[in-house]
Amino acid sequence: MQIEERLKELKDKINEKVPRGINVTQVEFEGPELVIYTDDPKRFADEADLIRILARDLRKRIVVRPTILEDPEKAHGEIKSVVPETAGITDIFFDADTGEVLIEAEKPGVVIGKNGATLREITKHIGWTPKVVRTPPIESSTVKQVRQYLRSVNEDRKQFLRTIGRRIHRDLPARGDETARKDQWARVTTLGCCREVGRAAFLLSTPDSKVLIDCGEKPDNAGATPYIYVPEIYPLSSLDAVVLTHAHLDHCALVPLLYKYGYEGPVYSTPPTRDLSAMLQLDYLDVINKEGRKVPYSSNEVKTYIKHSVTLNYGSVTDIAPDIKLTFHNAGHILGSAIAHFHLGDGMYNIAFTGDFNYAKSRLFNPAINQFPRLEALFMESTYGGSNDFQQARADCEGMLYDTINRVLQRGGKVIIPAFSVGRSQEVMLALEEGMRTNKIPKVKIYLDGMIREATAIHTTYPEYLNTDLRNQIFREGMNPFLAECFQQVDSQDLREKVIGGDPCVIISTSGMLNGGPVMEYLMNLAQDEKNALVFVGYQADGTYGRRIQKGWREVPMGRKGTITINLEIVTVDGFSGHSDRRQLMNYIGQISPRPEKIFCIHGDENNTIDLASSIYKRYHIETHSPMNLETYRMV
Amino acid sequence: MQIEERLKELKDKINEKVPRGINVTQVEFEGPELVIYTDDPKRFADEADLIRILARDLRKRIVVRPTILEDPEKAHGEIKSVVPETAGITDIFFDADTGEVLIEAEKPGVVIGKNGATLREITKHIGWTPKVVRTPPIESSTVKQVRQYLRSVNEDRKQFLRTIGRRIHRDLPARGDETARKDQWARVTTLGCCREVGRAAFLLSTPDSKVLIDCGEKPDNAGATPYIYVPEIYPLSSLDAVVLTHAHLDHCALVPLLYKYGYEGPVYSTPPTRDLSAMLQLDYLDVINKEGRKVPYSSNEVKTYIKHSVTLNYGSVTDIAPDIKLTFHNAGHILGSAIAHFHLGDGMYNIAFTGDFNYAKSRLFNPAINQFPRLEALFMESTYGGSNDFQQARADCEGMLYDTINRVLQRGGKVIIPAFSVGRSQEVMLALEEGMRTNKIPKVKIYLDGMIREATAIHTTYPEYLNTDLRNQIFREGMNPFLAECFQQVDSQDLREKVIGGDPCVIISTSGMLNGGPVMEYLMNLAQDEKNALVFVGYQADGTYGRRIQKGWREVPMGRKGTITINLEIVTVDGFSGHSDRRQLMNYIGQISPRPEKIFCIHGDENNTIDLASSIYKRYHIETHSPMNLETYRMV
Ligand SMILES: [Zn+2]
Ligand SMILES: [Zn+2]
Ligand SMILES: [Zn+2]
Ligand SMILES: [Zn+2]
Ligand SMILES: [Zn+2]
Repeated sequence: MQIEERLKELKDKINEKVPRGINVTQVEFEGPELVIYTDDPKRFADEADLIRILARDLRKRIVVRPTILEDPEKAHGEIKSVVPETAGITDIFFDADTGEVLIEAEKPGVVIGKNGATLREITKHIGWTPKVVRTPPIESSTVKQVRQYLRSVNEDRKQFLRTIGRRIHRDLPARGDETARKDQWARVTTLGCCREVGRAAFLLSTPDSKVLIDCGEKPDNAGATPYIYVPEIYPLSSLDAVVLTHAHLDHCALVPLLYKYGYEGPVYSTPPTRDLSAMLQLDYLDVINKEGRKVPYSSNEVKTYIKHSVTLNYGSVTDIAPDIKLTFHNAGHILGSAIAHFHLGDGMYNIAFTGDFNYAKSRLFNPAINQFPRLEALFMESTYGGSNDFQQARADCEGMLYDTINRVLQRGGKVIIPAFSVGRSQEVMLALEEGMRTNKIPKVKIYLDGMIREATAIHTTYPEYLNTDLRNQIFREGMNPFLAECFQQVDSQDLREKVIGGDPCVIISTSGMLNGGPVMEYLMNLAQDEKNALVFVGYQADGTYGRRIQKGWREVPMGRKGTITINLEIVTVDGFSGHSDRRQLMNYIGQISPRPEKIFCIHGDENNTIDLASSIYKRYHIETHSPMNLETYRMV
Repeated sequence: MQIEERLKELKDKINEKVPRGINVTQVEFEGPELVIYTDDPKRFADEADLIRILARDLRKRIVVRPTILEDPEKAHGEIKSVVPETAGITDIFFDADTGEVLIEAEKPGVVIGKNGATLREITKHIGWTPKVVRTPPIESSTVKQVRQYLRSVNEDRKQFLRTIGRRIHRDLPARGDETARKDQWARVTTLGCCREVGRAAFLLSTPDSKVLIDCGEKPDNAGATPYIYVPEIYPLSSLDAVVLTHAHLDHCALVPLLYKYGYEGPVYSTPPTRDLSAMLQLDYLDVINKEGRKVPYSSNEVKTYIKHSVTLNYGSVTDIAPDIKLTFHNAGHILGSAIAHFHLGDGMYNIAFTGDFNYAKSRLFNPAINQFPRLEALFMESTYGGSNDFQQARADCEGMLYDTINRVLQRGGKVIIPAFSVGRSQEVMLALEEGMRTNKIPKVKIYLDGMIREATAIHTTYPEYLNTDLRNQIFREGMNPFLAECFQQVDSQDLREKVIGGDPCVIISTSGMLNGGPVMEYLMNLAQDEKNALVFVGYQADGTYGRRIQKGWREVPMGRKGTITINLEIVTVDGFSGHSDRRQLMNYIGQISPRPEKIFCIHGDENNTIDLASSIYKRYHIETHSPMNLETYRMV
């Protein structure tokens, strides 16, 4: 078997480079990584730069793991016995993928011990590499469940990672003669999200590999899926990888469906995207169920997705197919959102998909990255790509939100803010918390309904994905803005009815485009009273109730729920968006480096994508396209 | 079974419309046609307009056939006994597809008899509908073999036609709600022949159907095939139809290969295209064999192709898939060459592929058709699409050919004219015959080597595909220009060597681009002598020896045959081409009706396709593209 020979060769090369006395027992492809098993991981780690040099010379992502990992149950007990109780350990998570054990503690310093003494003690006992993190200030049941589940399928997963490891590192068919070399190509097929917002899905293919980027739903309640049934992508088992840019449903909702239809490979995303996706997918099924529509898949497929997920942090260059390397970069849009950069062939071509991105600094994130080692083609979102899609400056829009709230509360009304549970909600929460703290708005209750609190908890689990200011605030005792006492989670029908019948207040609730979710109940009950207000803080896609109401509909037929009459005040505050506005989109291209040869404007209404494409062409003389769904573009 | 119900329904409708007393015994889909079986085909035929009205009302191609067809063997005897010997019957061909019997006779009038009496007598006896044609003045062994072979697989073929008949008329999945209606689309995937000349192959697909247009070779000896291995077209059994525009190898060479790889459906072409293709495919295998290269398929696959071929004449609108109608129109390029026009859905979209076309009248054909009932998109060839690709007027180019011949013969040299056996050869033959007849050039021998004579024979088999002048000439006693005594076929190595060593003469030989064939031997032996001349009368594609020599190479490495030194005179006479030149291409678009919304320039070098696309856009403000291979364009 060819692959065995290659592993043997790699092992020999590694043995040449490691200092005498370090024993490499085995070398194995596991997922995208080359795992070096050694009896002495500690000494391996102590050799400064050794792993970095191996990674560079072998051009692989290297993980070093002890030959023998202690049984997690037993290791769990040993950690508990070594670490003083005052450390306040809240979770111990054995990650078999990496050979790391994640120790969550209220006082990380105590786990580490003086000069790392306690940590060394742990390592000596259990083989697993300990990694210590501060206990998130808000516990996320999603994260807990995902970790528990991954623990329970540990053996399956190990097998899975070896299988895909070998697939990624398979030999390519020889391409000796000139004709075969000419047959090098890279193509992108648009399976959704072109001249529309929703059902993102792009197929990147080469003669040897196929990668699907995103697989989302169309938020119009009509159940349109991406065109995943066209022959280009069949059978789904022929896909090498699925790459997920971020956790919004228009990008991730139908990823579990792929497993139902025969996909068996990995889904690459950042760690927060994995957890947020699982949360939102389960919520998505729940909402559909409640509305009596047919669910496209069950929670079993969500589990299958989690079992097959492979997480990558920003900046880590990873082989995902024999001729494709993937690197995620911060997109500034929501927690864990990424620009997916693909390096094809041996320097043949580079192509990036922005997913959704924000080129402005927000309360939560740094602006999207626009520096790449190489870049020939860019697929960019165009949500606010229209020539008049200018958003207010953040300060102005927060001022407008404060004004609205003051006005509505004063006249005894309630403010409903529909928001995606992930991203917009946290931005608005941070703005409102500051507004109350600085007395710009009265201190009323802010009710959170839907998955907002859980989403917030996941944010605090991944502080390294937030910008520094917010990260510091979160961990400063008593300063965590998300824990401010103005916020109250609505978790029962009882409380929901009390809120509706109760005092003036602010309600932040999902879904963000009024296409289902608890916000619908608030709207049904509060829409008739002109004292109240409905405040849009995010993009409303075509076909959603949100868009209709925003456009001025006053009688909105809601299917079997009847028609609602809209008397309440409608306000649109558009600076909170996690998307770049027109000016930022243009600036992004002006400042991107290197400048790509081709730009494809996607993820926007027909007018917006066409307008943005032609404006970029006129201003920067770059070849642009506003593709339609179901087209295939040749890159090289 | 749904289809049985539909046939029953159709039978009822037909019975309502036929006059009392005509008994319709059965109604069946056979290939693209609806066949009405009746005990009384004669009366059916006598009812003026009945078939036309049925065809219009049922929107089907109607064929009426007697319920009982006599056994061909027996019918053969009966025809012979009824028709007087003086008719000179040369062939009787029973076409089970149509229920017609083709009677070829030297004196068609005698077969028909006084006021059609003899014909009526035949019909009464045998059931088959007799069709009388004049015996072709040159017998084609290809046509004879094709007919014999079809006769031998009659039963298989009947089954095949019923199978595809039912497939074509299958019910489409219901598309009730709005989402499904939105999912209507039509796409074209470019599998070859983009920014290059050769390996024509285009996939036209809708949600319900897939049609491949052409499947040719790349004439560069490197064996590049169209990209028929990409997932868009897999498995080949998913194709509904293959449509062949004409018989040149860059369009038809790899059609038989499709059957090797699992295709099982029909190939639609005009009748001459079927016969010419079979001839050229067999010759293609022969040439490859002789050069010791690997043949892509065997003569068995050519037979399989013939067995699955379905011929259509110009102008006949034919269902080839549940949502696709095909109509062929004269392309003026070679015998039987067609522009393939597709009508999609119920008035949804119309798209035409020109194949190769000539918008000038030639000695052989009328100019290409450019009037269509509807047309939204056009894929047009751009062989001579470059801004300087102007051909000489026909008179000028014939004058130049005469001058060249006079000059070379005078100095005692020989003239080699490499030409496609089909098209260019006949045009040049006609010009030379006239030149000699009118004393513009001396009366020397014109040797024909390769499939030229056989190709000429096929031309005389289908006089209705030639223009009227030529058709009349061919059938005027002693006036058939193709039978002029100046022409001599070279059919032995012995004669070939005598020609090479003999007197000044003209040699027309295949292949037309010097990529194999007997012309190579003439070139090897005559290239060193500057008295001789090599006259290019057709397009020389990139990568062929023809192109290299035309560009001025004087030392041409020919692989294992060594290097040949080019001393002979090189002349290019470009008015004989069967292609439109730049001016004609532009005029074609100027005069096309209706004017399409989108034009795709293909079948031309990269510069030519780009230049033509941008010139058409500038002059006519039509959206144009110069696609690359492996792209997919959305039509609607
Ligand atoms: Zn998003
Ligand atoms: Zn999105
Ligand atoms: Zn384009
Ligand atoms: Zn041609
Ligand atoms: Zn051609």
